Amino acid sequence: MDKKIILRNKKSNFYPVILAGGRGTRFWPLSRKRRAKQLLALDGKQTMIQQTVARLSKLSSRERFWIITNEDLQREIARQLPSLGKRQIIAEPLGRNTAPAIGLAAFILLRSDPDAVIGMFPSDHVIGDEDKYRDVLQRGIAIAASGENIVVLGIHPTRAETGYGYIEAGEAFDGKGQRVRRFTEKPNEERAEEFLKAGNYFWNSGMFLWSARTLTNALREHLPKTAPLLEQIAAAFGTSKFLITFRKLYPKCENISIDYAVLEPRSLKGKDSNLYCLPAEFGWNDLGSWTALHEHHVGKRAPKDGNLISGQGIFTLNAQGNYVHAPTKFVAVVGVDNLVVVETKDALLITTRDQAQDVGKIVKHLDEKKLHKLV
Amino acid sequence: MDKKIILRNKKSNFYPVILAGGRGTRFWPLSRKRRAKQLLALDGKQTMIQQTVARLSKLSSRERFWIITNEDLQREIARQLPSLGKRQIIAEPLGRNTAPAIGLAAFILLRSDPDAVIGMFPSDHVIGDEDKYRDVLQRGIAIAASGENIVVLGIHPTRAETGYGYIEAGEAFDGKGQRVRRFTEKPNEERAEEFLKAGNYFWNSGMFLWSARTLTNALREHLPKTAPLLEQIAAAFGTSKFLITFRKLYPKCENISIDYAVLEPRSLKGKDSNLYCLPAEFGWNDLGSWTALHEHHVGKRAPKDGNLISGQGIFTLNAQGNYVHAPTKFVAVVGVDNLVVVETKDALLITTRDQAQDVGKIVKHLDEKKLHKLV
Repeated sequence: MDKKIILRNKKSNFYPVILAGGRGTRFWPLSRKRRAKQLLALDGKQTMIQQTVARLSKLSSRERFWIITNEDLQREIARQLPSLGKRQIIAEPLGRNTAPAIGLAAFILLRSDPDAVIGMFPSDHVIGDEDKYRDVLQRGIAIAASGENIVVLGIHPTRAETGYGYIEAGEAFDGKGQRVRRFTEKPNEERAEEFLKAGNYFWNSGMFLWSARTLTNALREHLPKTAPLLEQIAAAFGTSKFLITFRKLYPKCENISIDYAVLEPRSLKGKDSNLYCLPAEFGWNDLGSWTALHEHHVGKRAPKDGNLISGQGIFTLNAQGNYVHAPTKFVAVVGVDNLVVVETKDALLITTRDQAQDVGKIVKHLDEKKLHKLV
Repeated sequence: MDKKIILRNKKSNFYPVILAGGRGTRFWPLSRKRRAKQLLALDGKQTMIQQTVARLSKLSSRERFWIITNEDLQREIARQLPSLGKRQIIAEPLGRNTAPAIGLAAFILLRSDPDAVIGMFPSDHVIGDEDKYRDVLQRGIAIAASGENIVVLGIHPTRAETGYGYIEAGEAFDGKGQRVRRFTEKPNEERAEEFLKAGNYFWNSGMFLWSARTLTNALREHLPKTAPLLEQIAAAFGTSKFLITFRKLYPKCENISIDYAVLEPRSLKGKDSNLYCLPAEFGWNDLGSWTALHEHHVGKRAPKDGNLISGQGIFTLNAQGNYVHAPTKFVAVVGVDNLVVVETKDALLITTRDQAQDVGKIVKHLDEKKLHKLV
């Protein structure tokens, strides 16, 4: 089939649903409850969510985008995405993980467009080659549009990462994809090493494609208690009773990820699972920590000394591999290596690239101490 | 002689001359050209120069204090020391090191009080026991008031420091002091080790006592070109021609320290030198760097983890021996040891306790780049 025909055809039915409820504590002190990672411009001038919407806009028209977020972030997201209508930004009364979030979108869309194909997207990832990204998505949309197919985008692992779920891929499918044999939760180091060596394992990117019909059917099968609640909320969408219904029923939904609720059990069905993995060879980074951000930028700009310092003027001496964010200050770095230092209006973080993942512990401490202004 | 009689007697003739022209670049970014180290409150609520004046005020009345500084600092010093008259704060048109500075004060004082006893004091040192300090000074004032005696306060060395000049002491004098055998410039490490082992070497504290007559005579002998210039400037002091004379003649004075100009040559005269060293056993620290400041405060407060962090709230995890100054911020320190991090309104310094002495290089860089606002 001609690619352009697929594009035009699928654009009409393709609905990007962007999950933007994450708190992203690992970018503290830059990220806060009301300014989560997806609302930060960590890679370029646009924020992560603005980039996510922009790169998908060639595949769908703006009125078909949906953002699922929380009440803390709703206002800032609306500000950052003025081209979206208010009703396209849905704020959960409380977080119930990804299954109810994407499920609600599916039940809403099914009512207005029985042929809707939904793409589920994280709001805070970096994509390298956007043309390749859209090519993969177009293939995925075509697959998801037929039958009960579910498509997941898989990332070729480059290290034995224990922080991601993995996809075990099986026989080839349709030239560029593979059938999914199994979804696997985050492995320990030993298993992660095995996966890396085996060659047929992919990181689960969190990007899925399916029709609204397929997804709602799957939810009815795998989450029989939650699916009717979501259906009721969806029925109230657009009416004066939506908010009250949403706030009443959503907390009763199971707090579960779509991976765990649907994809893992489905993958056990063998060939009948209709689960397909498309390798996402377009350059991907989920920027999971200050360290990951540092590595991403070093990869792009390749400074000889590995220092990435934002400031009003910089002086370095005997200093390598440091990440310093202090955009309003003159920054002098003398005799230190591999530090992460981040300064904001009200906070100063000093840590190392190795320990930057522990930043979440600071936020936990601040939560416990009820230092609300700092979280 | 009764101590109180000495005190009353000497207080009338004792003139503290505080040298406050130093730039103190080693406390960048807190110290700046117009806010040098002596104008910072590095140890307590008062600034270093305020503390210096306060602790000497029990030995002399305020109108007998003299401050020698530079034009960049004059205004702020006057602001910090409102009890001093404007004419008591003399701003050099350019720095000529300590010999012309203390010499000018001596020539001025000789004209109004031929029996004046002058104490020369740095403006930026920490004194532990102020009562002991004044006891030593009172003894020194009594010695300096008679004959051609010169008294220097010597610090018992506690390490093989190569950053200070040393005094070699000889036979005992007057119960508590020793004759000075030799002034020695900053030694190399090997010699500093020898001095430390020998036991009869003291650090030169930069605190001297002498009569105005003794000092002016010594300057006439050892700096025969400079002494008449200082005498001319002193003659104009208090007249409408003072500033023009000062600005014209002072730059022609030799740029030389009093140690090198007078004390070292004088120490070669043997017993005729009349040079006496009083051991300064009152707790002394010249706070020569961020590292020295950190050690001084750790010594006083003895925190278990060796961290000294000023901030609006603090969180530490796996962190030891760090000095962080960020008084307006919440400070989180995770997984780092022995760092020095100093944040001001316009600058951020990140270095280690070992390398903090290199901070002067940053100021040199800023000078070269003409980043005047930052120096």
